[in-house]
Amino acid sequence: MFELLMQSCLDKAWEVQTLALPNPSVACMVLDQNYRLLSLQTHTKAHTPHAEVRALAEAFNALSAVPFPKDIDPLDKQANYNFLAQNHSDLFKECTLLVTLEPCNHFGKTPPCAALLCALKPKRVIVGALEQHPPAQGGLKRLQEAGIEVIVLDLPACYDLLYPFKCLSKRGVFNLFKIATRLDGNYQGKISGTKSLNFTHNQRGVAQTLIISGQSARTDRPLLDHRFADPLYQDRLCDVAILSRNPVIDRSLPLFGVAGREVRLYTRVQDLPLHTGFNIIEGGWHLLASLQDHIDMLLTHTNTSLEPHQPIPHHAKAHFTPHHAQILDHDLLTWHSCGSTNL
Amino acid sequence: MFELLMQSCLDKAWEVQTLALPNPSVACMVLDQNYRLLSLQTHTKAHTPHAEVRALAEAFNALSAVPFPKDIDPLDKQANYNFLAQNHSDLFKECTLLVTLEPCNHFGKTPPCAALLCALKPKRVIVGALEQHPPAQGGLKRLQEAGIEVIVLDLPACYDLLYPFKCLSKRGVFNLFKIATRLDGNYQGKISGTKSLNFTHNQRGVAQTLIISGQSARTDRPLLDHRFADPLYQDRLCDVAILSRNPVIDRSLPLFGVAGREVRLYTRVQDLPLHTGFNIIEGGWHLLASLQDHIDMLLTHTNTSLEPHQPIPHHAKAHFTPHHAQILDHDLLTWHSCGSTNL
Repeated sequence: MFELLMQSCLDKAWEVQTLALPNPSVACMVLDQNYRLLSLQTHTKAHTPHAEVRALAEAFNALSAVPFPKDIDPLDKQANYNFLAQNHSDLFKECTLLVTLEPCNHFGKTPPCAALLCALKPKRVIVGALEQHPPAQGGLKRLQEAGIEVIVLDLPACYDLLYPFKCLSKRGVFNLFKIATRLDGNYQGKISGTKSLNFTHNQRGVAQTLIISGQSARTDRPLLDHRFADPLYQDRLCDVAILSRNPVIDRSLPLFGVAGREVRLYTRVQDLPLHTGFNIIEGGWHLLASLQDHIDMLLTHTNTSLEPHQPIPHHAKAHFTPHHAQILDHDLLTWHSCGSTNL
Repeated sequence: MFELLMQSCLDKAWEVQTLALPNPSVACMVLDQNYRLLSLQTHTKAHTPHAEVRALAEAFNALSAVPFPKDIDPLDKQANYNFLAQNHSDLFKECTLLVTLEPCNHFGKTPPCAALLCALKPKRVIVGALEQHPPAQGGLKRLQEAGIEVIVLDLPACYDLLYPFKCLSKRGVFNLFKIATRLDGNYQGKISGTKSLNFTHNQRGVAQTLIISGQSARTDRPLLDHRFADPLYQDRLCDVAILSRNPVIDRSLPLFGVAGREVRLYTRVQDLPLHTGFNIIEGGWHLLASLQDHIDMLLTHTNTSLEPHQPIPHHAKAHFTPHHAQILDHDLLTWHSCGSTNL
C-alpha cells in the first residue's frame, strides 16, 4: 500500500516540478495511526518550509486540540520549524510519514528536517528515494538511531522526479523547453486554460532566463510577464532572451514594456544564456529543432481541442521519454526527458 | 487515504477501459488488516470473473497456507467464485476491499459478487460509485445487512470511468475515435510502440465494427487484424467498415485477406454502422471532422517523438474533456469525452 500512496505523493510533487529550484521537488504525506490522511504537502519554493514541515504543520491542526497559530506565516521556514519542535506534545508518535526524498540532514538557516523528525518521533518514515546531495545525506541513519522505523522504497519514479534538481546541482544548468499546442500539434491563437497559464507564470518567477524566438516576439507580441502567477512567485521575474537572426528588433514590442527585467537579443544559438541556471525556452517545433541539443526536458501543454489551421512544416526529429502526465482542466501537461536521466 | 487508494484502482481500471464491454471497467483492491496490499485486479473481459473475484482469488494466495488450486482456470467465472465461497475459511474477515463500483447483486450464470462478499465477510468494503444498472443494484444494502462496514466515496471520477458502459447500456451504442500521432499531431509512418499496439489489438477483439477511411485503406494498406492481442482477446475479431466516396476498392488490399471477419464498403457517413454496439473509428483529423457528431469518446495515442513531415491541413473544430492519461513506454494514451458524461 505504501508504494501506491507514494504514487500520490509523486503526483503531488510533479504539480510543483521546477518551482522549488534550485531545491528538488518533494512531497510529504502524514497519516495517523489508522492510516487516515492528515496532510499531503509539497516544498513549493526555495527559502520556504520543506515539504515535511508543511505537512507536519497541517497534520498538527488535525491532531491537536490547540490550532496551529495563525500568526505564524506558513512560508516562514524558521517559525514553522520552531513551533513544531517546541509544541509537538508527542502528537505525532503514532503517525506514518511518506516522503518522496530522504529528509535533509544539513544545517542551513534552520536545523535539518531529520532533526525535527527525531524530536517529533513519528512511528514510521517511508522514503521514496535516497538523498543524492552529499551535504544533506545521513537523515535516515539519524531517524533510525532515534528509534523511528524507516522504510526505503527506492523507486525509480522518485529518482526521476529529482531530474531537474540533479541537472542544476550537478551540471549547473537545467534547460526546459515548453510548448503549448492543441491536440493536432498546432499552436495558433490563444491555447492554454487558466490553470495551465498559472503554472507557466509561476515558473517565470523562478527561472533565470526565458528564451523565445524573434519571430514569436514579433508575430505573437507576448508580454512574457507573470501577471497570472500566485503571489508567492511574484517577487521576481525572469529575464528574456530573444533569438533572432535579424539583429534589429522593434523596441516598442509589448515585452520591452515590462518593468524590472532585462530583455537581450541574441543572433546566434551558441551565445544564448543556456549554460547556467534554470532556463525556459518557450516556442514551437522550429525553435525546438534549433535548440534540441541544449534541452534537458520538454514540457508539453496540450489543450484538448482542435481548430482548423494552416499547418507549418518543421524539421525536428527527436525521441523523448515521458515521465509524468497531469490533467489541468482542458490541458494535459506532460513532462519528458530528452536523454538518459542518470546523472 | 481510501480516496488516494481509490485513485490507484481507477488508474488500474482505465488500463482495461472498453475491454470488458458490454460490462463496465471495474478494479478491486484487497488490503489485509495492516492495510498491506494483497491484490489489485480488474474485470478484463465479459464472461470472465468480476474484479472482486479476481482480486479475492489473488488475495487468497497471499493469506492462505494452501495455495489457490492451479487447475482452476483464472478465467472461469463459476469455478473461481465457487472455490472462494467454499474455501475462504474466514481468511478475509480482517480485510478491506476497495471497488470502483458497487458490487453487483444480480443472478446471472453465477450468483452475484455481493453474495460472495456476504459469505466471505471482509471487515470493510469501500465503493467509488454506486451501481447505475437497476438489475445489479442493492449490493451495498446486502453487505450492510451481513454486518460488513460499507463506505461509499461517491467520486465523480469513478462515475466517469463508467461512461463507455453507460453509453452502451443506455443508448445501445458507444463510438470511440482512436488516433495515433506524434507530439506534433502528425501520423505519417509507423508510430505506436508495442504496448500501445497491444491495447489497440485487444480492443479489436471486443469491438463490433472497426471503421476506417478509404484513403487510409488504400494508402496505409493496414491489415487491421489483432495479431498483437493477448490470447484472451483473440477468440473473435471485429468487422471492418470502410468509408469511401469512391465505391470501387481494390479487393486485393491486405485487409481483405484476414479470415473470419467481414469487410464492407460505405459511401455515405449516414449508412455507417454507428448506431449500435461498441465501434472504433481509427483515422486522422479529417475523418474525425467528418464523424465528429457520432463520437462519444476520443482516445489519443501520442508517441513522444517528432519526425520532419509535410503536414496536412484539416477542418476539425472541437473541444474535448480529458479524463485519464496513462504512459505506456513512449506512448501517452489519453481518454477524452466529446460531450457531457451525464447520461
